[in-house]
Amino acid sequence: MTDRKPSSQHRPGRLHLNAFLMSTGHHEASWRLPESDPSWTSSNIEHLRRLAQLAERGKLDSIFFADGPGLQSDVGRRPAGSLDPLIALTAIAASTERIGLIATASTTYNSPYNLARRFASIDHVSGGRAGWNVVTTAGPDIARNFGLDDQPAHAVRYERADEFLDVALKLWDSWEDDAVLADKASGVWADRTKIHGAEHVGTHFSVAGALTTPRSPQAHPLIVQAGSSEDGKALAARYAEAVFTAHQTLGDARAFYADLKARTLAAGRGADQIKILPGIVPVIGSTEAEALAKEHELDELIVPEYARAQLAKTLRLTPEDLPFDRELPADLPGEDEIQGAKSRYTLIVELARRERLTVRELIGRLGGGRGHRTLAGTPQQVADALQDWYDAEAADGFNIMPAVLPSGLEQFVDHVLPVLRQRGLFREEYEGTTLRDHYGLARPESRYTSSRSVVRPGSVAEARELATAGA
Amino acid sequence: MTDRKPSSQHRPGRLHLNAFLMSTGHHEASWRLPESDPSWTSSNIEHLRRLAQLAERGKLDSIFFADGPGLQSDVGRRPAGSLDPLIALTAIAASTERIGLIATASTTYNSPYNLARRFASIDHVSGGRAGWNVVTTAGPDIARNFGLDDQPAHAVRYERADEFLDVALKLWDSWEDDAVLADKASGVWADRTKIHGAEHVGTHFSVAGALTTPRSPQAHPLIVQAGSSEDGKALAARYAEAVFTAHQTLGDARAFYADLKARTLAAGRGADQIKILPGIVPVIGSTEAEALAKEHELDELIVPEYARAQLAKTLRLTPEDLPFDRELPADLPGEDEIQGAKSRYTLIVELARRERLTVRELIGRLGGGRGHRTLAGTPQQVADALQDWYDAEAADGFNIMPAVLPSGLEQFVDHVLPVLRQRGLFREEYEGTTLRDHYGLARPESRYTSSRSVVRPGSVAEARELATAGA
Repeated sequence: MTDRKPSSQHRPGRLHLNAFLMSTGHHEASWRLPESDPSWTSSNIEHLRRLAQLAERGKLDSIFFADGPGLQSDVGRRPAGSLDPLIALTAIAASTERIGLIATASTTYNSPYNLARRFASIDHVSGGRAGWNVVTTAGPDIARNFGLDDQPAHAVRYERADEFLDVALKLWDSWEDDAVLADKASGVWADRTKIHGAEHVGTHFSVAGALTTPRSPQAHPLIVQAGSSEDGKALAARYAEAVFTAHQTLGDARAFYADLKARTLAAGRGADQIKILPGIVPVIGSTEAEALAKEHELDELIVPEYARAQLAKTLRLTPEDLPFDRELPADLPGEDEIQGAKSRYTLIVELARRERLTVRELIGRLGGGRGHRTLAGTPQQVADALQDWYDAEAADGFNIMPAVLPSGLEQFVDHVLPVLRQRGLFREEYEGTTLRDHYGLARPESRYTSSRSVVRPGSVAEARELATAGA
Repeated sequence: MTDRKPSSQHRPGRLHLNAFLMSTGHHEASWRLPESDPSWTSSNIEHLRRLAQLAERGKLDSIFFADGPGLQSDVGRRPAGSLDPLIALTAIAASTERIGLIATASTTYNSPYNLARRFASIDHVSGGRAGWNVVTTAGPDIARNFGLDDQPAHAVRYERADEFLDVALKLWDSWEDDAVLADKASGVWADRTKIHGAEHVGTHFSVAGALTTPRSPQAHPLIVQAGSSEDGKALAARYAEAVFTAHQTLGDARAFYADLKARTLAAGRGADQIKILPGIVPVIGSTEAEALAKEHELDELIVPEYARAQLAKTLRLTPEDLPFDRELPADLPGEDEIQGAKSRYTLIVELARRERLTVRELIGRLGGGRGHRTLAGTPQQVADALQDWYDAEAADGFNIMPAVLPSGLEQFVDHVLPVLRQRGLFREEYEGTTLRDHYGLARPESRYTSSRSVVRPGSVAEARELATAGA
């Protein structure tokens, strides 16, 4: 295979890459490989640190942790358990210097004041590298950890998410950048006219006060979104700066890309303000045969009964409804009837129907990355596949989900990235210091200063007077 | 002044010391000193890291951050703003090795699943150094950040706190220490019979599931408590392993100490299982005159109008009710009528009444540490004062609240600690690795293994069967 020309449609260095980190890798059987150490879990901070440092060595834009505040049901089956992702990222921040740090957190099971504060705090301690993957968290199991019998309906969760973001953005603007005077002579520490309460009164939340934290290096964390339902896309169009998504075919990916860019424009934002990153599961070999053999070795390690039970749960069926050597039943419910993880549901059903897969075959396809696209091949083949989608405007970059960790990420960094760099498709070095710098996004302006056309003369003196008078 | 003999009543090395960290120090005017840098705030992680490293150089048991999820009302007046304390401690954990890390978090404005998970996560990433100062969070301003018009009543807050701890302790025991099998051959990762849902159904909370995190190095964070109301003492007796408290006189401190030890015994725990640490505000000079001059310099920098407004707020009065040169009004409400920060309220009123202080004098006394005991003197005088209370069974150690930071902590570490060590009252080196080790407390046994008299033979094989069958 000969090397390709640099991509002509995009300027060099613009492809964005995120490393999605997870214990021994995204393939559900990866922990059973001889190379995998039983201690490599998502609760082991030393393991996670090493993965993050590896991603940073590759100059990737960011690392990312998925999350739900509940123990996954398949705890018996693959490395389970995970640290709170915001705590994990904070610990990793101290051992890295540039790479962005994206954590998933739920708008359904958090309060906006606390969560906005935590993300602002991570942005402070990391020097502007925090990102928040906004999720509404599907599933009754998690609901039952928070006093509910079942999850709130999909539409209600998304309505709450929308208001949650509105409140969080208000809170992140609480302090104007020049609010602190620290005037020792007069004894005035801050200009209280430049610190603003959220004063939010809405359907789901009432939040009066100002955040405890001054405006952070990025002003607020990079907003990331990952659901592809109608509600999810609406939320993304309004708020998201990066989107993680899952597509099996170029056609689907292009359609999603065009749709979301159009929706983002319609929401009054620039198409460049949202970076769309489909997930890919690389399985890399020095020859294609070696890569396919590795993929086969992994698939052979899947315990079919476990995998079928998981699939049945996703499809709202029992394992008995899914004989291994038949296709999916014909009479599955439509996406409209599904209250959680709608887009994952649809992706799986469409994949099975389109390729007429038996349950056993479907399990093999899902075992690698739960519905994300597996790319098994040489570094050049993987690079080609990424470039194809990038050039075809199906992606602004990719969410890299190695089947096996750390080795899969190491191979990606050491062998795929050099090919992408040779083609001018990926950065040689970090050019900025914040996560938003890496994604080519500006630090948002404060809602308070952007609406103030002229700086009022004498405002500091006025503020001192007010502060002295009011106390 | 000659040096004293080693304390005879306690064995050497048993005094426990915590450093309470706060921006430029506990004196409200400390930031106005020439030595204080405007960047030394509680939002500046580099500053906080240096303070923590200084405390660790002194081999102190722990550092501690106070907290409330709301911006303090005196933001104009002294360094305000603070990182989420759990995020701050996690960042500090990476730059320290042994010192304990105690963060305040509210049971009123958090959910037990999320908070238990965060503390377990910090305990994991810090190697067993996490502590939680359990507070119920007073004040209507903070309530209004969480959709409430006012704080819940004092008794309700404490009832919720009690149940919150009950749930958290269940969650922290979710995973038995040997739950993970990681049996690659059979494909069984964990013994699901050794992972337990909380299955809690109570008045304030219903929490069904297991925590996402395996049992942490300390099993759970050190439980710290700081309120001295009746409800606060009841909570401490039942759960607290360390207590921060405020007393101005030896008599008050001894009475509190005896009372709380007795209550702890009555709650079925050992008197040694709870360490009582009164706060002290050291102002250290090489001579007594130098220390007093430093204290005077600080008090002169207090802005009286600010301080009076703050005092008025605490007393539920207006500033006009408090002429500077008069004593407090006679007709103040009793503690029973106060719904928040009851013990602080009583301490201030009793201090003013006992010493017949004018408002101006009271402001001076409170400016140093909001009601904690100021010790201005030479290193030997400070050490004497600590030993007196320790020997008199008024304290198991102290919560050190330097008037000025970092210099006050530096003086304490470099000049007071050597005197205490000479007397055999404080450790030369850390003897263990966890916070609980420093406080001389054992790792709690799991509720599941402590009730299991014999390990059932064949349980691993059984578990595998169950896992394979159930999936």
